[in-house]
Amino acid sequence: MRAVLLCSGLATRMRGRIKPLVKVGGREILYRTITLLRTHGIDEFVIVVNRKNKEAIEEFLQRIGVNYRLVVNDSPERGNGYSLYLARNHVSGRFVLAMGDHVFGEDFVREALKGEGLVCDGEPRYVSLDEATKVVVEDGRVRDIGKHLKDFCCVDTGFFVLDDSIFDHAEELVREREAVELSEIVKRAGLKIHRVDGRLWMDVDTPDDVRRAEKALFSLAVKGEDGFISKHINRKISTRISRMLVNRISPNHATLLSFLVGVISSLSVLVSIPLAGLIYQLSSILDGVDGEIARVAMKTLKIGGWVDSILDRVVDFLFLSILAYATLRTPQEFFVAMLAIFGSFMVSYVAEKYRADFGESIYRKIRVRVPGKRDERVFLVMVFCLLYPYLPTVYLFALLALITFGRVGEMVVKAARKN
Amino acid sequence: MRAVLLCSGLATRMRGRIKPLVKVGGREILYRTITLLRTHGIDEFVIVVNRKNKEAIEEFLQRIGVNYRLVVNDSPERGNGYSLYLARNHVSGRFVLAMGDHVFGEDFVREALKGEGLVCDGEPRYVSLDEATKVVVEDGRVRDIGKHLKDFCCVDTGFFVLDDSIFDHAEELVREREAVELSEIVKRAGLKIHRVDGRLWMDVDTPDDVRRAEKALFSLAVKGEDGFISKHINRKISTRISRMLVNRISPNHATLLSFLVGVISSLSVLVSIPLAGLIYQLSSILDGVDGEIARVAMKTLKIGGWVDSILDRVVDFLFLSILAYATLRTPQEFFVAMLAIFGSFMVSYVAEKYRADFGESIYRKIRVRVPGKRDERVFLVMVFCLLYPYLPTVYLFALLALITFGRVGEMVVKAARKN
Repeated sequence: MRAVLLCSGLATRMRGRIKPLVKVGGREILYRTITLLRTHGIDEFVIVVNRKNKEAIEEFLQRIGVNYRLVVNDSPERGNGYSLYLARNHVSGRFVLAMGDHVFGEDFVREALKGEGLVCDGEPRYVSLDEATKVVVEDGRVRDIGKHLKDFCCVDTGFFVLDDSIFDHAEELVREREAVELSEIVKRAGLKIHRVDGRLWMDVDTPDDVRRAEKALFSLAVKGEDGFISKHINRKISTRISRMLVNRISPNHATLLSFLVGVISSLSVLVSIPLAGLIYQLSSILDGVDGEIARVAMKTLKIGGWVDSILDRVVDFLFLSILAYATLRTPQEFFVAMLAIFGSFMVSYVAEKYRADFGESIYRKIRVRVPGKRDERVFLVMVFCLLYPYLPTVYLFALLALITFGRVGEMVVKAARKN
Repeated sequence: MRAVLLCSGLATRMRGRIKPLVKVGGREILYRTITLLRTHGIDEFVIVVNRKNKEAIEEFLQRIGVNYRLVVNDSPERGNGYSLYLARNHVSGRFVLAMGDHVFGEDFVREALKGEGLVCDGEPRYVSLDEATKVVVEDGRVRDIGKHLKDFCCVDTGFFVLDDSIFDHAEELVREREAVELSEIVKRAGLKIHRVDGRLWMDVDTPDDVRRAEKALFSLAVKGEDGFISKHINRKISTRISRMLVNRISPNHATLLSFLVGVISSLSVLVSIPLAGLIYQLSSILDGVDGEIARVAMKTLKIGGWVDSILDRVVDFLFLSILAYATLRTPQEFFVAMLAIFGSFMVSYVAEKYRADFGESIYRKIRVRVPGKRDERVFLVMVFCLLYPYLPTVYLFALLALITFGRVGEMVVKAARKN
């Protein structure tokens, strides 16, 4: 299946930049759309450009190595309906049409491709209703469409699943008048609508829109398996940091950064335990950044996540063992510390071994309610370090051992019962 | 596809037991063949029995819940060719024919099903040539077949992939004479041969054959990923123990047994370190038994392997931490011990995390030559414990930390390079 992407608009509010090539979350808007469509088997792209941006867009397409045909609209002032019309000889049968300057989310594209016609959103979350193109629907088809309608039920997302009969209506309109907007063709064709509500799609017109799109992308890049502290504290901070860094550093550098901060926190134990606890919690926050940047900037590499997890284990071990070394004295105390370190390992080991053996996350099917995920453990350690020296460290280790073994025990029992 | 299994033979050397129902490696011969064929999509079985064993075999088939049709041969003395002939109305097109009293290995069945005709073995490893039925081949077809041939190139395995045209030849022979052996039909039909060399198939005629078949099954049940000590010491002992226990205990009980021996070894540290080391090594040997029994007795459950791995981690931790507790005194020494315990964990964690993320064993693609697998670590610990008290325990921990971190480092570097 092919997709037609309209990139012939004349950007007026983006300081002369070519909108489809504006970077949002570390990647050009056009890169994002093409990549998402490719994951759904769409591998040929018809890109309609104007004379001004032709060269830059062609160079970009060659750089990313995609199968494309370029169609030049020499009269962009004739409207985006005319741009679609120009693509008529390059597609046949079913095809996708999308605006080249819109940012679409992963979930949006997946749902949009399940239907046909104009994809509409009944609960737009990321665009202001003032700016949106409203759609009045009758019997599942477009009756009216425009910016200033009342009694509309949903708005135009700039994404369509069409077939080539649309060109008959386009041709009629192109013959009738000079400027033809897409919405006029849609209305004339009485296109079916396909509702995809509340997912991410955004018209990116201004630098402010870029920031809002990035914020949305980062909020969607958070993993569903987060623990309590991660969900309510760490992610709120890490996504802000990620947004600042996404155009500046790679996921690998972010991994290295959080690892180094972790090592520094461990060594800080020898200087000041409260300070070390704070830095340890900071490293736990930074630990989310690499994954967030990778997901938003579409740079996810499995090996990156793999190395990151291994480095997490190293940091946890370093922190706890140096804390034990610096504060404990008797073999009994060390035995408790060893139990705690062992327990915190087992939480990860049991989960990974389960995923390796059964091909699914132990957290997805077996809702574990006993606390003891890494974010929670690190936070607990920080709180303790801040209270130190009022409490002996061995209490911390005893508590850690208790919660981690509780968690491991629950995981094992539930897994055994399930299988 | 269907399979015809011939169970109408009159066992003479098995003390009156019904041969297809004799247990080999914890499972009836017939169960083994049916189960292996089922994993290859064969799900209907035509079982030819005699009047004497009919009831017992039917009860067995109902118990294991298989889709079967029973054909009774009231004249078993007319030979196994006649038994095949009786099955003629129950199969059409391609079908499998196998002797009901033969033990077939997993690899044998997989390879056998890839060809057609009489499956022959040019390098029989598990049967004596004196007893075997020899085959003389010309142009890929059977020219002669019998026990006393010379110039044969391979032997009859008792496994066939046929089509229903075989019944024409069978019918001719059944009309011509009273007793018809399968080999006569094979010769008359000039059957194609399909070579599967050196894999496990065995005619089980005597109690001694049962023992030899079990030995073969256990030697094949050893995993390819074993470390040096496991391969050269542990498996040689564990497979013997497994053979003794396979008809007596379940894999789960074997898991529990090795875990308990491991716990006992850990606690023994407080009594006698050399003794504890020996028991620890014993638990490492016993650790292989559950998997071997499960594989040979076709009782493999993923959750069994999962729990077993988790218990291994617990035993390793208990042994090392109690050893540290009993022998170390200074924080520095404990730090080294913690490093060692952490390292031995990371070996398992890194490997499992890799398998979870990449769906393949890190050992298969990346040949790791640095020692430090569990069998090797346990053996090293035992050797040290026997030498104790001539060497301070901290040396053991330093060595353990070194080999395990070397191993982890090599795994990580190679994995990162590969991906």
